[in-house]
Amino acid sequence: MIRFEHQNLLYSKDLRTAIEPARLKDYTEAVLNAHAEIQADRRADILGFYDLPQKDIFPITDFMSKIDPKFDTMLVLGIGGSALGNKALYNALKTERNLPRKVYVYDNVDPIFLHEILREINLETTLVNVITKSGTTAETMAGYMIMADLLQRRFPNDYHQRMIITTDREKGFLRQVIKDEGYPSFIVPDNVGGRFSVLTDVGLVSSAFAGIDIDGLLQGAGEMAELCAEADLMHNPAYLNGLLHYLYMREGKNISVMMPYANALYDMADWYRQLWAESLGKRRDVKGREIFVGQTPVKALGTTDQHSQVQLYTEGPYDKVFTFLSVDNFDTDFIIPNLHPEREEVSYLGGKPLSKLLNAERKATEIALTQAGRPNCNIIFPRLDEPSIGAFIMMYEIQTVFTGKLLHINPLDQPGVEAGKIATYQLMGKKGYN
Amino acid sequence: MIRFEHQNLLYSKDLRTAIEPARLKDYTEAVLNAHAEIQADRRADILGFYDLPQKDIFPITDFMSKIDPKFDTMLVLGIGGSALGNKALYNALKTERNLPRKVYVYDNVDPIFLHEILREINLETTLVNVITKSGTTAETMAGYMIMADLLQRRFPNDYHQRMIITTDREKGFLRQVIKDEGYPSFIVPDNVGGRFSVLTDVGLVSSAFAGIDIDGLLQGAGEMAELCAEADLMHNPAYLNGLLHYLYMREGKNISVMMPYANALYDMADWYRQLWAESLGKRRDVKGREIFVGQTPVKALGTTDQHSQVQLYTEGPYDKVFTFLSVDNFDTDFIIPNLHPEREEVSYLGGKPLSKLLNAERKATEIALTQAGRPNCNIIFPRLDEPSIGAFIMMYEIQTVFTGKLLHINPLDQPGVEAGKIATYQLMGKKGYN
Repeated sequence: MIRFEHQNLLYSKDLRTAIEPARLKDYTEAVLNAHAEIQADRRADILGFYDLPQKDIFPITDFMSKIDPKFDTMLVLGIGGSALGNKALYNALKTERNLPRKVYVYDNVDPIFLHEILREINLETTLVNVITKSGTTAETMAGYMIMADLLQRRFPNDYHQRMIITTDREKGFLRQVIKDEGYPSFIVPDNVGGRFSVLTDVGLVSSAFAGIDIDGLLQGAGEMAELCAEADLMHNPAYLNGLLHYLYMREGKNISVMMPYANALYDMADWYRQLWAESLGKRRDVKGREIFVGQTPVKALGTTDQHSQVQLYTEGPYDKVFTFLSVDNFDTDFIIPNLHPEREEVSYLGGKPLSKLLNAERKATEIALTQAGRPNCNIIFPRLDEPSIGAFIMMYEIQTVFTGKLLHINPLDQPGVEAGKIATYQLMGKKGYN
Repeated sequence: MIRFEHQNLLYSKDLRTAIEPARLKDYTEAVLNAHAEIQADRRADILGFYDLPQKDIFPITDFMSKIDPKFDTMLVLGIGGSALGNKALYNALKTERNLPRKVYVYDNVDPIFLHEILREINLETTLVNVITKSGTTAETMAGYMIMADLLQRRFPNDYHQRMIITTDREKGFLRQVIKDEGYPSFIVPDNVGGRFSVLTDVGLVSSAFAGIDIDGLLQGAGEMAELCAEADLMHNPAYLNGLLHYLYMREGKNISVMMPYANALYDMADWYRQLWAESLGKRRDVKGREIFVGQTPVKALGTTDQHSQVQLYTEGPYDKVFTFLSVDNFDTDFIIPNLHPEREEVSYLGGKPLSKLLNAERKATEIALTQAGRPNCNIIFPRLDEPSIGAFIMMYEIQTVFTGKLLHINPLDQPGVEAGKIATYQLMGKKGYN
């Protein structure tokens, strides 16, 4: 199980402006109220992500057992919640778990990016997976039309066995395409919002294809959901971290930096960016009052960004709270050879594992930020494996909804993206938009 | 030449809280003072980046003309200013310029990341380029010892022709290694700080190797330097953008989002992140007074992050200023086939270039953010080519130094990273650090 270390979010002699532990008691009622609202939402069946650990994965594993073994690559077409989880899971596990199949995600309408993917993959052995709940997302539909056309021209006899579609159970344009063309299909459920959907078919199909143990993911998520089932701050890391971040937001720390010390977890910080930004960045509270609230999630990479961002983090404004992600044990590692034993500049590195230097730098950055009075916390993965990743996902989904409740906003909607969609339709000449 | 569109940084009926054009006149003297300080720094030869367009590139082109043609890959070992520019240039141009050789950058001590690179490259045809001014950067030294050891074991007869070293002209551990082992070498100049060094040997060697026209880069940089030579706001985009960002910082907009609408420019936003954060994020002003100043640079990607961050950008706190990067003309493009002409949901996309949709979404996001009262600007690349990229780099280097002068801080130092380095030495048991 992942570990959450929160001591540097609380007052100490270095962190004199940090939150005093006694203050948490003032929020007992707020925590209970938020918890009660979450329970009510669960009864109303709008927080389906809580129940995904009990999901029946047979349709996925059954499909994977029957696909043509020639397929060695999946190309996901999706964007936002239909892409970020796929990338995060695949990149977290591909090397440490030595995954046998590759996953590419085209989550833009950038022509260069598409060209680069098509140059790398072998279309003959690629299964395309189109993911969009509405079936009308402009970016995904553009990619779908390009790839469907390509497959139909190149493989006129069996193109419908080379594309799968993940969309609404009944509604929408793509559900009709599935019926017309006979593509295999999966489901984006009604009771799980896009940015909470990584443990539905949206994220699990590409994961299972790649060779990720999706049962392990759900098992880890289930253990975390159980751990976070009660409104007991000291035993519920999602609620504790949510409350502390809420308090720092109220004190003007409008930036939350997630800094993995592992390239494999960098895309997990991108997944977090959507979850935190889109859920909590809101103009109005649930009563309709204008509040313009939200904390900007920033991804940084250890050790790389020590040489780019840590100057600002240490000496700049007191406007941030930090979360380090780290991995205790790497299966992949290198010993740094002691190439110049006579030279003090480098001999201290000799004979030590690269992972030891990586984790020492994480600890060193924690020490430096703490001494500079910057609140920070750790989430530690014992190793990069499915249960740890699943637990992390569930912790942050619960934390996000809980923090939304503390803020009295709706963490499940995204009214602010409509204006841009409409402007796009107008600029592209869609019928009915002038 | 790139174009800078700043109208949405100024007051309009949508942008009622934006800066009024008349206010810029109040800063005439501050601009002149900052300009005079820059001129003094140039005379003191501490702003060498201004003069790089006149750099003699013969040592680089001569070296490239003589290397064994078998080399098709360069692996850069460096971090921060010795890595970000290399990545930004290569990824901006590799596909549009159809570059003949590959560049990898290992800018961490992550063992999985190194394993992934070594699995992808062919060591037999790879030239390793170690870049560090001091020759003691822990991360780069760890990578150097691993790769030098690997090359010495595998190619005992000619390993010294498979690694080049870019470091201080005379000083440091690596300069000694160059003398001892006979590695070819390049120079990190004294008068150009790491984060301003992309147009020195630090960034130009890997670029020239890849096939980038480094003369074109310097030419574009030179044109921009000329354009920004006078303290005339309306004809100097670096000063104008610097002043406007300075004013927004003072009004509490502590976040600067750079959002390229081109995956190829995403790493350019990472290069900007270091430049802006490390230069302006400072505890003390030049007189030693504590000010804890700095604006946090955030990279976002269009259209991808419309489905992740734009909800927050539109409805969240008024704490941001936005810069869109976009490309007018793509050499690489796709026409979206009109696969379902009878279906209004998608037929508006049919027959149109992917790049048109990409740029329409950029415009739509600009409209939506402007309507929501969020100040924003555009930097438009006519195409992705060397002169445009060079001009962009020079504009931001000048803008950064200028903004530092307005803030009365030293934009060239980074005192805040020492504590972390010392803690790393202690944790790794370096002699003299307990």
